[in-house]
Amino acid sequence: MSKVKTNAGNFFEDFAVGQVLQHATPRTLTEGDAALNIAFYNMRFAVHSSDPFAKAVGYPRAPLDDLIIFHVVLGKTVSDISLNAVANLGYAECRFLNPVFPGDTISASSEIIGLRENSNRQSGVVYVRTKSVNQHGEPVLEYARWVMVNKRDHAAKVGEAVVPKLASRVDPATLGSAVPRLDPSKYDFALAGSPHRWGDYEVGEKIDHIDGYTIEEAEHQLATRLYQNTARVHFNLHEQIETGRFKRRLVYGGTPLALARGISFNGLANAFHVAAINGGSHTAPSFGGDTIYAWSEILERAEIQGRSDIGALRVRLVAVKNRHCHDFPLKTADSKYAEGVVLDLDWWLVLPR
Amino acid sequence: MSKVKTNAGNFFEDFAVGQVLQHATPRTLTEGDAALNIAFYNMRFAVHSSDPFAKAVGYPRAPLDDLIIFHVVLGKTVSDISLNAVANLGYAECRFLNPVFPGDTISASSEIIGLRENSNRQSGVVYVRTKSVNQHGEPVLEYARWVMVNKRDHAAKVGEAVVPKLASRVDPATLGSAVPRLDPSKYDFALAGSPHRWGDYEVGEKIDHIDGYTIEEAEHQLATRLYQNTARVHFNLHEQIETGRFKRRLVYGGTPLALARGISFNGLANAFHVAAINGGSHTAPSFGGDTIYAWSEILERAEIQGRSDIGALRVRLVAVKNRHCHDFPLKTADSKYAEGVVLDLDWWLVLPR
Amino acid sequence: MSKVKTNAGNFFEDFAVGQVLQHATPRTLTEGDAALNIAFYNMRFAVHSSDPFAKAVGYPRAPLDDLIIFHVVLGKTVSDISLNAVANLGYAECRFLNPVFPGDTISASSEIIGLRENSNRQSGVVYVRTKSVNQHGEPVLEYARWVMVNKRDHAAKVGEAVVPKLASRVDPATLGSAVPRLDPSKYDFALAGSPHRWGDYEVGEKIDHIDGYTIEEAEHQLATRLYQNTARVHFNLHEQIETGRFKRRLVYGGTPLALARGISFNGLANAFHVAAINGGSHTAPSFGGDTIYAWSEILERAEIQGRSDIGALRVRLVAVKNRHCHDFPLKTADSKYAEGVVLDLDWWLVLPR
Repeated sequence: MSKVKTNAGNFFEDFAVGQVLQHATPRTLTEGDAALNIAFYNMRFAVHSSDPFAKAVGYPRAPLDDLIIFHVVLGKTVSDISLNAVANLGYAECRFLNPVFPGDTISASSEIIGLRENSNRQSGVVYVRTKSVNQHGEPVLEYARWVMVNKRDHAAKVGEAVVPKLASRVDPATLGSAVPRLDPSKYDFALAGSPHRWGDYEVGEKIDHIDGYTIEEAEHQLATRLYQNTARVHFNLHEQIETGRFKRRLVYGGTPLALARGISFNGLANAFHVAAINGGSHTAPSFGGDTIYAWSEILERAEIQGRSDIGALRVRLVAVKNRHCHDFPLKTADSKYAEGVVLDLDWWLVLPR
Repeated sequence: MSKVKTNAGNFFEDFAVGQVLQHATPRTLTEGDAALNIAFYNMRFAVHSSDPFAKAVGYPRAPLDDLIIFHVVLGKTVSDISLNAVANLGYAECRFLNPVFPGDTISASSEIIGLRENSNRQSGVVYVRTKSVNQHGEPVLEYARWVMVNKRDHAAKVGEAVVPKLASRVDPATLGSAVPRLDPSKYDFALAGSPHRWGDYEVGEKIDHIDGYTIEEAEHQLATRLYQNTARVHFNLHEQIETGRFKRRLVYGGTPLALARGISFNGLANAFHVAAINGGSHTAPSFGGDTIYAWSEILERAEIQGRSDIGALRVRLVAVKNRHCHDFPLKTADSKYAEGVVLDLDWWLVLPR
Repeated sequence: MSKVKTNAGNFFEDFAVGQVLQHATPRTLTEGDAALNIAFYNMRFAVHSSDPFAKAVGYPRAPLDDLIIFHVVLGKTVSDISLNAVANLGYAECRFLNPVFPGDTISASSEIIGLRENSNRQSGVVYVRTKSVNQHGEPVLEYARWVMVNKRDHAAKVGEAVVPKLASRVDPATLGSAVPRLDPSKYDFALAGSPHRWGDYEVGEKIDHIDGYTIEEAEHQLATRLYQNTARVHFNLHEQIETGRFKRRLVYGGTPLALARGISFNGLANAFHVAAINGGSHTAPSFGGDTIYAWSEILERAEIQGRSDIGALRVRLVAVKNRHCHDFPLKTADSKYAEGVVLDLDWWLVLPR
């Protein structure tokens, strides 16, 4: 008999700490991806939109939006890591290490850095560190992620729990390698859409980004496929009606994230670079028809060692569905996430000084 | 307290005649924009679809469809001019001055050329002249537009009315600068899809363009975001249900315009260049689910000074929703626009002679 | 009176055997088309996704997915051949002859190779051979197709029936011209997503490709317009409700085909090239909201003369809607297509040896 040719995905007991998985399908990113990124999320950061603007400040040309890289790398890991996942639990130590330009090709691999079976023995938590490199082998993105994955056989014996120590915050001293040394005198704040530099933001400041965008099924499907993400829950209405918990397709968590990033331009127009993600939770699912709003809070303002041209803001970005953000919805009195909150993200953004 | 970081848009009393606003986010247009323009509107003009066709007739390569430039420039002005607009009243003196190619970067600025408060003192009409230039500073598009904008404070005093004189028709002698001198013997009418040249059209001739295209919400949202247009009414169903007049998202007026342009290929396949827009009205809103049809009437046939290769047709383009155009719907006996008419446009199109 | 400017399409009596029709609008394909092809169908074949992967094995850069060429060429023929078609009857002798890269321009022409009036004299079958060439005049695609086309005038006299002899199977000796000589040692099976080579597949082997994708109206419309296909049934809901058989838009048959191709990556990840289509039937219509699944059967395993680097598999690809494929649905006891089967395709795929 012939060998099984299809991939049903790995189950919890298939993973071993130290194992490295090379993910399939290296991807050359192009101006097509850049155009679609604007069409999907109304991204308006001048550095990514304009070659002359990017060149003036020090890039060889307009780099791709950092989140494109994040989406594409995450998409590559699905078939090997999370095809049998029940929950996406968290991120940490995510850093964008080099700029990526149209024409560059990225590939990704993941190392299993931790495994912990759940007490019910039906599933367990898989910790991975995923690294992506460009065609020259230079690192472009690195992050740790942990997901809950089903066991194939509940009786299968697994090794002792290994839980990695992950930083709750990326050290700002390590940020900024993806940004060339800028000439701040060449950064045109009028063209960029806002006069506010790094130093104009204060810790504790909250910003309601005002706008809301309604997600259509076709939109999140097109975007999620562009990232070659194969998670079935996003694409298959027939199966969701048969066996899904919500009887609907679930929107890929990167969609409200990217929409919130696009919306945050109104208030953070000069925060052109995502340097790192300290952590984040998808706190509720989004569906076709939901309208995403967003607000931010400045958590920390950090200088970057050796860089007088740029500074970093640690920002909490909260995406909320079907609810305005002038009252900055986050948690209720009992410390649960408030109705409508779909994403609570903690990241480092880079702005000119 | 920190300064407000978000842009709530200008109100009527914020504008002054003579004021110049530099709009944010210069935009490098690419082959991604060109592909999406075909996907959105089924554009089939050979000059924009094929590099070899464009080169044969005299372009260095296929230029971008003129309407892409129009959409992108208009999109840039929204945050500064029309975020608090209640109505888009008209256009005049719109000229396409140089071709734009993939890789070119356009930016835009607007001068306030007129202001007239309404008698109810709650709003007023703002007249702007918007100019867009490429990365070499060469003009690519120029137009006048007037919109009705709310006042923030109804009691605010404003200056005396200034109403600019705007031509009702662009002088055909000024057309054609965006078209290189064509070699008509190299223009392949079979590849272009029609044998009909400039001289084959007669004043008074009406053309039913036959086809209809149904607009999906995802389609107009993707297109309008690609133009980095931030007008909320197009994207936010949640807010429209709360406070909108129609309880639905309104389709950006450029969508029926561009669909009608795409549809008009069947009948005007050689009218490859939009040289100017003399005027135009969005006479009714379009919504997701509407089907757009279109018809044209030849209003005038003009030679272009010094150009024996090309000629201009002044054309009325009418876009109609949910209704066939074999009876050329336009106005009713009482001079109101007929049911279904959504756009009444007066423009100059260029064809080979 | 002016000449009619619009194209109402050819009717059965307008065609003559031996007639050659040059189709309109040559099309320069770009990275925009490549990105959209991934966004529409989640295509994941490494050869088309990555320039370095393609170069390593012997291409100058990543070629475009073969099906893009098929869709674009077929789209060009609609206005001349099938605007008045009632049914798309079949394909044969379809071969992909040279690779097409971003920046290449393709055009197409068709020769009428057969005509046979139906006994009711209301319509007839038109047989065409369509050929597409690139900007150098090199052939890129060739196929025979037959469609049933209405007569304008049922009383019109037509010539004697001419029915061409078409092969039921493309000779594998003629395959492979679109694939450069590969260096199999440079083909990275981990990056490609599967270890299975040509020799690993056995005749009779069936593969359930598992995944299902739900088609949104916006998705099939965007794709079909990108191919500049003008068949009205795909785009015009208003007209379909008025006069259509299904009161809905019909999905272009290339959409379930391309989705099935994308889905087939899971099981046939190294079948990177479609060399030929032996035949195929669209056995039922698809509509917005349908979920497409797919399965394949290996029909034949053929060496390609003079090529030790690649081999061909003759594969039956079956696309099925709203039904899983673990039981390989095809026909019922009475030899009719089973409920849900929308496509039954017979093609030659090329894999590394």
